[in-house]
Amino acid sequence: MAKTNYSISLQEDSKNFITEATLQLLDSKSFNKLTVMEVVKRAGVSRMAFYRNFESIEDVLKQYYCPKFEAFFDKIKKTHGEEELVILTEFFSVMKSDLIKAINHDYDSIFFDILSQQTELFIQPQNRSEYYQMKFIIAGTFTVWKVWLTEEDETSLAEMWALLSNLTKKY
Amino acid sequence: MAKTNYSISLQEDSKNFITEATLQLLDSKSFNKLTVMEVVKRAGVSRMAFYRNFESIEDVLKQYYCPKFEAFFDKIKKTHGEEELVILTEFFSVMKSDLIKAINHDYDSIFFDILSQQTELFIQPQNRSEYYQMKFIIAGTFTVWKVWLTEEDETSLAEMWALLSNLTKKY
Repeated sequence: MAKTNYSISLQEDSKNFITEATLQLLDSKSFNKLTVMEVVKRAGVSRMAFYRNFESIEDVLKQYYCPKFEAFFDKIKKTHGEEELVILTEFFSVMKSDLIKAINHDYDSIFFDILSQQTELFIQPQNRSEYYQMKFIIAGTFTVWKVWLTEEDETSLAEMWALLSNLTKKY
Repeated sequence: MAKTNYSISLQEDSKNFITEATLQLLDSKSFNKLTVMEVVKRAGVSRMAFYRNFESIEDVLKQYYCPKFEAFFDKIKKTHGEEELVILTEFFSVMKSDLIKAINHDYDSIFFDILSQQTELFIQPQNRSEYYQMKFIIAGTFTVWKVWLTEEDETSLAEMWALLSNLTKKY
């Protein structure tokens, strides 16, 4: 039977409820302690509805955050010079608290995976050596942002951008 | 009351039992699911004995692995050229399976922390920029080893060492 518009919209609703519930629960809970049972209870949907839409809680977060990173990458690829910093500032003003929450509640590896995936598409390494070099740069970059976000020193976003450009341009 | 040799040796025994039990349980269990209760049960000691010796399960692993990394760093610092590869080969022949287990069971961040700590002592960054650069290199290096250990491509240890020397010498 073909899906009616009504059933499609119901499914969209469940998806949104589940995503919303997951993000809310992660405000106070560590990712590793969160169960699908708690999510469906908070979302007011069935376990079946969860698994119709998602493979796991990790999948909920990936589906939610992936498009946000994609949009950022799309913009930054088309830009040069000063404009890059404007886009980065915009990205962090929207995402900063989400990123800090992810670090504190042990799911920042999801952001690392998204970043890796996006970068891999962009760089397309031709051999193992290039592949390892790419992994080196992604992990370095990710960790530097992570340290900056959690240790909150006096370094400005512009200084961080300059510092990272300098670190990565050697390759 | 001063501790007698006998009570010191009893405490050493508990420590060893606890460490042994933790490592055994992590053969089949993820770090995030492992509880102190399970560890003390397997070790045959009381919760009090656990907390007299350790703060947490993470602490058990740190106390066990830290000296092993320290010994490696001590050796590698005193060495140059070809000899480095000999020491590295020895290190991986002892540690490889432990490292892979840690990656698969979600506690490789403990090794990352140990590596960071050791490197920080060695490098002693003088300002924020040097500090970020150090973090960049540690995270890059750690991730490259992690990818190598889990993806098992054809790259030899000697090739990896050359590749990483090349990636890090730019700084």
